[in-house]
Order: sequence, then structure tokens, then C-alpha cells
Amino acid sequence: MSHSLDAIFRPQSVAVVGASNAPEKYGYIILKNILDAGFRGPVYPVNPKGIEILGRPSVRSIADLPPGVDLAVIIIPAGAVPQALTEAGQGEIKAAVIISGGFAESGDEGAALQREVVEVARRSAIRVVGPNCQGVNNPHHGLCASWPLLTQPGEIAVISQSGTVGAALMDWASREQLGCSTFVSLGNRADIDETDVIEYLVTDPHTQAIAVYLEGIKDLDRFRRVVSGCRKPIVILKAGRTVEGRRAAASHTRSLAGRDELYTALFRQLNVHRADSLEDLYDAAKALAYLPRPAGRRLLIITSSGGSGILATDWAEWSGLAIPPLSDQVATRLRGLLPRHCIVANPLDLTGDATAALYRTVVEATAAHVDYQVIIFGDPILDAAGVVTHGAPQLVIFLGGADVERRERERMHLKKVPVFPTPERGLRALARLFAYHGEVS
Amino acid sequence: MSHSLDAIFRPQSVAVVGASNAPEKYGYIILKNILDAGFRGPVYPVNPKGIEILGRPSVRSIADLPPGVDLAVIIIPAGAVPQALTEAGQGEIKAAVIISGGFAESGDEGAALQREVVEVARRSAIRVVGPNCQGVNNPHHGLCASWPLLTQPGEIAVISQSGTVGAALMDWASREQLGCSTFVSLGNRADIDETDVIEYLVTDPHTQAIAVYLEGIKDLDRFRRVVSGCRKPIVILKAGRTVEGRRAAASHTRSLAGRDELYTALFRQLNVHRADSLEDLYDAAKALAYLPRPAGRRLLIITSSGGSGILATDWAEWSGLAIPPLSDQVATRLRGLLPRHCIVANPLDLTGDATAALYRTVVEATAAHVDYQVIIFGDPILDAAGVVTHGAPQLVIFLGGADVERRERERMHLKKVPVFPTPERGLRALARLFAYHGEVS
Repeated sequence: MSHSLDAIFRPQSVAVVGASNAPEKYGYIILKNILDAGFRGPVYPVNPKGIEILGRPSVRSIADLPPGVDLAVIIIPAGAVPQALTEAGQGEIKAAVIISGGFAESGDEGAALQREVVEVARRSAIRVVGPNCQGVNNPHHGLCASWPLLTQPGEIAVISQSGTVGAALMDWASREQLGCSTFVSLGNRADIDETDVIEYLVTDPHTQAIAVYLEGIKDLDRFRRVVSGCRKPIVILKAGRTVEGRRAAASHTRSLAGRDELYTALFRQLNVHRADSLEDLYDAAKALAYLPRPAGRRLLIITSSGGSGILATDWAEWSGLAIPPLSDQVATRLRGLLPRHCIVANPLDLTGDATAALYRTVVEATAAHVDYQVIIFGDPILDAAGVVTHGAPQLVIFLGGADVERRERERMHLKKVPVFPTPERGLRALARLFAYHGEVS
Repeated sequence: MSHSLDAIFRPQSVAVVGASNAPEKYGYIILKNILDAGFRGPVYPVNPKGIEILGRPSVRSIADLPPGVDLAVIIIPAGAVPQALTEAGQGEIKAAVIISGGFAESGDEGAALQREVVEVARRSAIRVVGPNCQGVNNPHHGLCASWPLLTQPGEIAVISQSGTVGAALMDWASREQLGCSTFVSLGNRADIDETDVIEYLVTDPHTQAIAVYLEGIKDLDRFRRVVSGCRKPIVILKAGRTVEGRRAAASHTRSLAGRDELYTALFRQLNVHRADSLEDLYDAAKALAYLPRPAGRRLLIITSSGGSGILATDWAEWSGLAIPPLSDQVATRLRGLLPRHCIVANPLDLTGDATAALYRTVVEATAAHVDYQVIIFGDPILDAAGVVTHGAPQLVIFLGGADVERRERERMHLKKVPVFPTPERGLRALARLFAYHGEVS
């Protein structure tokens, strides 16, 4: 193992402890997802009855596994977990993901059990994700030790204290064909926390941006140290920001959320983006992972929809982005190229009968004169995907195009050009990108 | 005709003036959409060559139409429109939707042409939508004189000064199986404006909420009078709120946007909701159209996802909604009904292994003790749709459930229970509903 967390995110072999034949149980669902996601190494169901599960014989106990399995995914009652971890240590298992609940989140008895888990794990040199979590997923490695089954590889890493919130992000990225590089549900963070994972992802070749959902940071000093050395953009949605929200967070994962202003100051200091909502978290990560660094602040909005151009202009101003007037040179050039009814200004309104060819003309004619093009497709524009280029400084928004829009959006996502659903979401995401690279206040 | 705008929204017969055989032209697209949406009355293509279009013979001129056609959809060059309207008047056509651009939005010459259109229309007693617009759509009437083809009937009316923005709203509603009651793209508002349509919709049996995109109100006094008498909720996204946005609006539809604070004050006075973004406009209309009036302010959050419960609590507090503690009576009752690992509080966290049956137990046990249930499904929960009831005071949010979520969401939408994609969007929409009914500040 080149890195201690490789056994979790890139295991060569996996045991599912508590594998089950009952389709409603996570011991069945996770085993099935590991197999269906196409994991290439050996997969060992562990079940005390030794039954066949999903066509595979199971071994009766951890002691019966071949020695040195990389990862054990554990889905058994909380009380049995310390003993299982002890056996895992004896069998030289390197890491465990503990799905089971019933630990610190459930009261004093569970908290004692969790302390025991930590002691056994330390003694046995086993790194642990969880307990009380939704597992891990690395689509680049064919590993879906989680649910739902999501297999689309991509460039956004998702670290989440909430399984559902993380799964929602990963589901959105999968549905958009953009996918994720890594997903980890941290659960109670008995051992591995957000900082460990961020540290690991710094050198992960697939991760371009890191999206994090947290209710509180576990170790502020380590977080500060690791994040200030991280050369990849990080966006954090920190929940429990209100009085009532903090109270709710305390009973969820026992996080001491702390005063919200402290997080705002910390994140600003570390150039970490603070998301306001789940969709903001997703949009920001999408922009930061897939869009190139701006060379300057000059935006040009190109649209077939006047209304969308106005909304984009409002949101640009609110987000600290400027929409400068066209230079005389560019305006003259465009007047020569475009039909008379187009409104040659910024926003540049090609009006409702614009075709992909007209967009392409404008995109090519203006590329050298602006720093970023905001291209809004506001109709069912055939071959819109042919207008945009991966790696070019282009923010793409598509709305009002129904089935054509969905087809073209998929084409764009397949060539890794992110598409945003509304002017406001696009411009807010672009502002994050500019802020990360020091191009806005 | 029982109402002057019935000829536009519920015509018995339609002529498409400028119908075309070229699939990229709106004269083809609109005719095709009218036919494909299943319009039940006669449809007359008008084309000077008298060619067959989409299997139908066309008539060569408006003069050749049978007298008294209800609606003419006009897609011919701007300069020919006044003459066409004159002929329409002679043929006793009652209303026109002018798709063509090249009027006031394009400069002085176009403005003069638009004045001529207004004069002819007045003289001929023809009501006009547009010019420079994306048409009208009434799915309850099988009339899609617009694009894209959208046919799902529903209860949200969409009035938009921007064709694309309105089409995006209607597309979202269609994709969610909720649909729309009416769509109108106002364009340059030479005759019919937002107030005319609102006035018409007051008595439309299908419309439960009205979503409006505007860059400016055309006639403030009439707007004030009509809206203060409207017993249906209205949500408005007013674009051009910033300095640069106002400038962009001025060149789009020549709207004088006016100072933003004036609109804020006006909307507050009229109990009109001001949407902050396009998705906010959609979400608010969805809640207002499909959710029942709250009897009071006591919310209970029921979730399988602790993280989503915290996010919902934050957004409730930010939106002015309270999440009160459970009464001792309800808490005791729930402790007797639920597995020990559930967190009996508000939010009520059923944790990650919750089933639809467990949700149902809680929903039934608490219905009489709270005013609104916020039900967050945060996993692939089979038969989640079986838990919710149309017309019950339940706000439903679903995330992190991937394919199961999409299936259950569709089932819920088919029974007219609106589902929101994130805690923040759900709670913001609920706050709109409460505000409309006077239940929050």
C-alpha cells in the first residue's frame, strides 16, 4: 500500500461482514452494489450460516478469510463490532468501513462501544470509516461499497457527514454524466475524519474539486494545516448554522457545531468556499472541477434569450462579476457578422431564431477579446453541443429547450463541459471560480 | 365567447399564418406542435403558395379562410403584419398571436410598425398577444401554439415577458408530471399585458397559482386594481433589479424597469410573492398551487436523514418558520411506536434504515398534533409514495434515492403531491405558502 487510505478507496480485495440474502437489508444491498459496480478483485461474503449469497458461497467468520484482505465492510449489530474488528486484526485486514449504527449517536452505551471500536482499531492498525455511515464509493476503481448503486466516474470528490446528502450530490453528478472521483460517508468519525480524506485526495489523480458536507470540523488544527496545503479547490456546506439547526446537529452526529461566524472566518482565511445550499455546493464543485482558470475579469454574455441575459446580468452584479460594455472594435466586427435584428451589446442577444451556427460565429469572433464567455442557450437549439469546447473559458447555461436541451446537455457533459440549469445558478458558480482564482472580491 | 380572451386561450379554430414546409422555421414548428398536441378544432395553414403542409392543404391568404376563425397565429415578416391584421379583421378573426419579431424591440422603424399593429387591432376588435413572442399554450385545451411541444395539463399558470424563461418553467412542470394550466409569452405587449392575463385567469377553473416573469409592469394602476381583487396566489420574478440588469432590460423589451424598491413595496402591499430566482419562482408556484392552507404554524420534520433534517431546520429558521419541540404526549407516544435507535425530537430522525411503513406509522400518529408535516425521504425508500396524501398538510422532500427516488417522485406527482429536491428548496417554498396565508411574518 502506497498510502494508508488506499485500502479503503482502492482495495484489492473486499469482505462483506454481515452479508445477507434478504433484499431489504444493507448486507444484501451493499454486496450486490459491489458486484454490480464491477469490482475486479475478490469479494468475500461473511455470514455465520455459510449460505450462498448472490451466487457466491459465504465464509462463516472473519477468521475463515484468507489473510491480508484489504477492506472489510461491516454491517452487523453494534455490539458484535468490537469482536469482529479484533478478528479482522488477527487476519491482517487493513481497513474497515462500519455501516452499522448504534454507537455514539445513540447514547452513552453506544458511545462506550464506539470507544472500544477505536481502541481495537488502533491496536490492530486498522483504519476505520464510520461507524453509522453509508460507506465509500470509488467509481474509478469499480468500488461501490455504499448505496444507491452509482458508477459514473468523474472529477468531483464528495466527503459527507450525512450519507443522504453525499448520495444526493453523487446522484446528481451521475445523472448529469459528470460523475464523481470518490464518495465517502464519514458517519460518526470514530477514526477517519474529513481532514484525513482531504489529505488523501490531494494526490488523487482523478479529483479536481472537493465537495464537503459537515456539521462540524473534528480537529480544527489539523484541518487548518492540511487545507492550507491543499492545491485543489474545496467547497463546504456547513449545516447547523442557526440556533435550532445547531441543536439538531448535536443530536445527529454529536457535532459541536460552534458559532457560525468562526467557520466563516476560517473558511475565508483558507480560501475554502462556503456553500449556502446543497445545490450551491454541487454547482460550485462542478464549476471548480470542470472549468478553466480565468485570465481576467471581462465577461461576455451570449444568449438567444433576452430575459435570461437580464437575469444573468442581475446575478453577475450580485455576485461581484462585471459585465463590461463591448469595445467599439468588437461591436463593429459583430455588426458586420450578425443579422440586423440581433442586439449587439453585453448581453449580446441573438434573439429567438438563433442557430448553433450563429452562436459559433459569435463565440469564435469574440474569444480573443474577452476573458470568459457566458453562453446561454435559451431554446431547443440543435447541435448546441457543437458550439462549446472542453477547457475553453466558457460558462454554459441551457434552459427552455425541453428534449433538445436534455440531449445537447448530455452531449456537452460527455465532453466534460459543465452545463448549468439557470442563469442564477451558472453565474453564482462562475463567481466561485473567479473568487477561487482571486478574480473577484 | 364568454370572455374576450377565450379566443386566445380556448379557441375553437386556429389559422397559422406563415405556415411553412421548412422544419427549422417557426411556421412549421408551431403548426406541427398545434397538431401534435391534439387540438380538436379545425386548423388552417395559410401560405401564399397554397402548398400542402404536414399533410394538410394550405389556403393562400387570410381572405380565403372561412369567416370567424377564433385565433390567428402569425409568423410572417414584420412589415407584412399590419396588412395581415387588416385582412383578419375583414374575416372576423377574433384574436391574434404575433410571433414575428422586428417591432419595438428592434428600433424606431419597428416601433412605428408596432403602433400600426395596435391601431389596426383596435379598429378590427382583434385582441393581440405579442408581437415578438413565443406564443400561447393551454394543455387543458390541447392548444400548443408555441414551442417546445409541451402537453402536460396542470394547475400552474405561466405568464412571461421572456419566451425562454416561461418555456423553462413549463418544461420543468411537464417533466415533473405536474404540468401547467396556461402559458403565455407576452413579448412586446402591444395589446395584451400581464394584467389582462391575470384578470382572465382569476376565473380559469384549472389555475391554482400564477407564476409571472416580468421586466417591468406595463400599467401599474390596472395591475394594482386587478391583483388586489385576485383570490389566487401570484408569484413574480422581476428581472432587471441591478443597475446593469436594468440597462439590459431596457434593450430587451424596452421595459422601464424602475427602481427595485418600488416593486418590493408594491408586491408586499398586494400580497404578491417576489421570487429571487427562476427556481424559486417555480418552487413557490408549485407549493402555492398544490399544497393546502396551513391551519397553524406547528411544523414537524420527519426524516430518515439526520443531515437533511438539520439543513431543513436551518432553512426553516432563515425563512421565519418555527420547529417547536415535541410535546411530552407526542414524544411518549412515538417512543412506544418506534425502534430504540430513532431520535425522538423535532426533527424526528428515523435513521437510515427507515421504511415506508415506519414513515406511515409516524405520519399517522402525529397528524392530529401538528399543523404541517415536513416529510423528508433521504434514501431509496420503496413505496414512499404510499406514505403521502394529496390535500394533506404535508411538505414532501426527496433526495439521495437515485432511481427509486425518481420512480416514487413520479408516483407522488401523478397524485398531485408536489415533491421538492432539497431541504432548502422545500422549506423556502413552504415559507411562501405560510406567508401567503398569513402564517409567518
